[in-house]
Amino acid sequence: MPTRQPISLGLSMRYIGYHAASWRHPQAQPGAGSDFRHFVRLAQSAEAAKFDMLFLADGIGIRAKDAPPGALQQTAQSTVLEPLTLLSGLAAVTERIGLVATASTTYNEPFHIARKYASLDSISGGRAGWNIVTSWSEAEARNFGRDKHMDHGPRYARAAEFVEVVKGLWDSWDADAFVHDKASGTFFDPAKMHVLDHQGEHFRVRGPLDIPRSPQGRPVLVQAGASDAGIGIAAANAEVVYSVAHDLNGAKSYYDKVKNAVATAGRNPSGCKIMPGITTFIAPTETEAREKYEQLNALVPEALGLSYLYGQMGDLSGHDLDGPVPEPTDPAVRSIAKGLLALAQRDNLSIRQLYTTIAAGFGTRILIGTPRQVVDELEAWVEAGAADGFNLCPPVLPSAFDDFVAMALPELRRRGLFREEYSGTTLREHLGVTVPNSRYGGAVVPRE
Amino acid sequence: MPTRQPISLGLSMRYIGYHAASWRHPQAQPGAGSDFRHFVRLAQSAEAAKFDMLFLADGIGIRAKDAPPGALQQTAQSTVLEPLTLLSGLAAVTERIGLVATASTTYNEPFHIARKYASLDSISGGRAGWNIVTSWSEAEARNFGRDKHMDHGPRYARAAEFVEVVKGLWDSWDADAFVHDKASGTFFDPAKMHVLDHQGEHFRVRGPLDIPRSPQGRPVLVQAGASDAGIGIAAANAEVVYSVAHDLNGAKSYYDKVKNAVATAGRNPSGCKIMPGITTFIAPTETEAREKYEQLNALVPEALGLSYLYGQMGDLSGHDLDGPVPEPTDPAVRSIAKGLLALAQRDNLSIRQLYTTIAAGFGTRILIGTPRQVVDELEAWVEAGAADGFNLCPPVLPSAFDDFVAMALPELRRRGLFREEYSGTTLREHLGVTVPNSRYGGAVVPRE
Ligand SMILES: Cc1cc2nc3c(=O)[nH]c(=O)nc-3n(C[C@H](O)[C@H](O)[C@H](O)COP(=O)(O)O)c2cc1C
Ligand SMILES: Cc1cc2nc3c(=O)[nH]c(=O)nc-3n(C[C@H](O)[C@H](O)[C@H](O)COP(=O)(O)O)c2cc1C
Repeated sequence: MPTRQPISLGLSMRYIGYHAASWRHPQAQPGAGSDFRHFVRLAQSAEAAKFDMLFLADGIGIRAKDAPPGALQQTAQSTVLEPLTLLSGLAAVTERIGLVATASTTYNEPFHIARKYASLDSISGGRAGWNIVTSWSEAEARNFGRDKHMDHGPRYARAAEFVEVVKGLWDSWDADAFVHDKASGTFFDPAKMHVLDHQGEHFRVRGPLDIPRSPQGRPVLVQAGASDAGIGIAAANAEVVYSVAHDLNGAKSYYDKVKNAVATAGRNPSGCKIMPGITTFIAPTETEAREKYEQLNALVPEALGLSYLYGQMGDLSGHDLDGPVPEPTDPAVRSIAKGLLALAQRDNLSIRQLYTTIAAGFGTRILIGTPRQVVDELEAWVEAGAADGFNLCPPVLPSAFDDFVAMALPELRRRGLFREEYSGTTLREHLGVTVPNSRYGGAVVPRE
Repeated sequence: MPTRQPISLGLSMRYIGYHAASWRHPQAQPGAGSDFRHFVRLAQSAEAAKFDMLFLADGIGIRAKDAPPGALQQTAQSTVLEPLTLLSGLAAVTERIGLVATASTTYNEPFHIARKYASLDSISGGRAGWNIVTSWSEAEARNFGRDKHMDHGPRYARAAEFVEVVKGLWDSWDADAFVHDKASGTFFDPAKMHVLDHQGEHFRVRGPLDIPRSPQGRPVLVQAGASDAGIGIAAANAEVVYSVAHDLNGAKSYYDKVKNAVATAGRNPSGCKIMPGITTFIAPTETEAREKYEQLNALVPEALGLSYLYGQMGDLSGHDLDGPVPEPTDPAVRSIAKGLLALAQRDNLSIRQLYTTIAAGFGTRILIGTPRQVVDELEAWVEAGAADGFNLCPPVLPSAFDDFVAMALPELRRRGLFREEYSGTTLREHLGVTVPNSRYGGAVVPRE
């Protein structure tokens, strides 16, 4: 077997799993989604499994105003722990695994973000990453003094400038700035401190950051957002792209598009890892795997299922749920519903089948089967150049993650696709992405 | 000995201590101020000593633009770890001690603050507190798009509204809202979720918060800010007031003023603990204690010492440092310099003596002496009704804190002034302050 680049694996550990009905699973502990101990256990399992990183998606508020009546109280996905506090807590009880938290450029200030992630990187000994998003819900807007979400154009213009400012602040100190010379009383060399003095369209930020350069030179930048503007941010910055893709062709063309954009931006495409999300139902036999899937699906109440279509397609509760998905009548709704309709038409889905597909993994690609079947799929995507790794979004936590570790991981390792041991201590080392240069040309990692 | 209310003790553990020259101390590790392990050790020592809380002051940026040339690189007090990430990390490696982080109402959004502190309270099992400040430096303003700091009036108007919004968001969920009824598929009772829908002068925030009610009903509110407007915020909200006081009379009149204001606001004055800051130099003999003090003072370079006066009095580097403190010539400077000048005149201090007094404890009250002498002072303040406890700001960390624990704490305990063991598990229980009611009248603490 030829040596090959091992894949990267992330554990996206939101709630008690991504399936809409996870909390109703007979073994699920419904309150675990806001219980720190649940996440400690998951983090330590993922570290024992040598995963690259823990990943926390985020929305800043309860994004469910646009739900049909009765649906909100049926979901466990409205309450969470806040990602940065949670990952900081987990930093203290883990040693190797990366810690990636989502933060929105739309509802934050760059100085806070630069500071908190640099601090997390320091606390964790070089394991922090920032998943850059621009948010999408009106619910978030209304928690921050706005009536509606910012438009796509200005939102991404703000995002691009936001990331520039954060990177600039992270360059405030050369790695060798702190000389600590007790005899002369010189704590740092002022030539190695850099004042950003950013004056842009959206932000004016002076700096310097009040935190020394972080252990991995700079926290890892992750990006999630599929539009051209999103890919633009990724091309200029991202070391990991978190994507959604349902079929190999789509995944491959997205992969090529992002890698080309990275190259066009003057960066090495291998320094940007593309990791689609996957939701797995694994069992020794395909029948058992499918039973796991169906068992959970049967626990999705109709109102909750319809809530996954409500924002895009309006209220479908008057329709026969086992009949075809209707053409939306509201023209304003029509364009955003296009993707969903296409999916329904391609596979000839009923309303119930459509919402079930989405509710099972929050829209992520679903894989159901034996360890070999699931790993065959993963390997096929990697071999085809459609993925550098995967962000695992288990339907139920911890059980579906434990299944992946117990069954899929040995198979991945047998095929030489995943590490047996960590070889480094930082998230950059796990991913195999280098430390970016400082814009000021100074040292970026502490000397031994 | 009559039973008395034990005092509250906090450890303010910034940098490697509050003394300007702490990092030059022969035993100091200069890099410890941004080393997580330093804070783990301190947190665990403070917990073993049964302290009520760890306390982290904060400024959002390097507040030293107004320093004379050469001073900035002489201080270890420009770089930190960010308080919320640091305390979240420490939550995972401690079990009982309270965790109080400072956050400014001037440069934050209430939804983020409500969310992060509720999350910290959850992660820590009910140990979080928020020290409400409004910030004071131009350096912070310039990191957030402003040329100068907000004026006092609007700054405090914003603060008052900010705190109202945060408290409202913390009431989003009754403690018994989450019924977790798997059979019916009801995760929570919608009648026990409350939508704030705040529309005020400074903020429009819809809610609800996406984090369940936190274990201590609501994080503890601490306030620091001595003006009438600051006292107004304290009266309406604070369960702890962190104050600065240098003499017993001043401390007592401040104490009475705050307690009266709390009563006028309709709250029980015993539910608001007043904790002045103290910086202690303790040794078996007074001579040794004074030597510790002088040893550190001798390590303060002149430029750094003068930087403590620079913002208020301008550049005094042309003057004889062992001569009297001159009358400031710039009328704009004069009013803010008044307090400093009064101190210098009262005690007939030279320029060097004045800056030394401030540099030794960042302006906090300094106590130098034997364990008995120091504890006599603390007891006198408590007996006189000038303090309910103290926030310890050790000059050098960990050594000066270790000294306090080894020498002052046994003496405090001998006099019945401080607990031998924790009797509760939350910060509220340590402080003896009750859980506030919800504005909606719902349950505020989870049933057993
Ligand atoms: C895989 C993936 C994950 C995402 N995760 C989040 C998230 O955790 N929080 C969030 O606010 N938005 C998230 N987004 C949304 C993006 O931030 C973005 O706001 C939205 O997709 C619209 O941008 P786009 O048009 O570039 O896709 C995610 C998007 C993708 C594709
Ligand atoms: C004891 C004490 C501690 C303070 N700690 C902080 C702090 O950590 N961060 C901060 O920005 N301001 C701090 N402040 C400043 C106040 O937040 C406030 O901005 C400033 O004192 C001006 O308000 P005032 O006029 O009400 O005192 C503190 C003030 C006092 C009295």
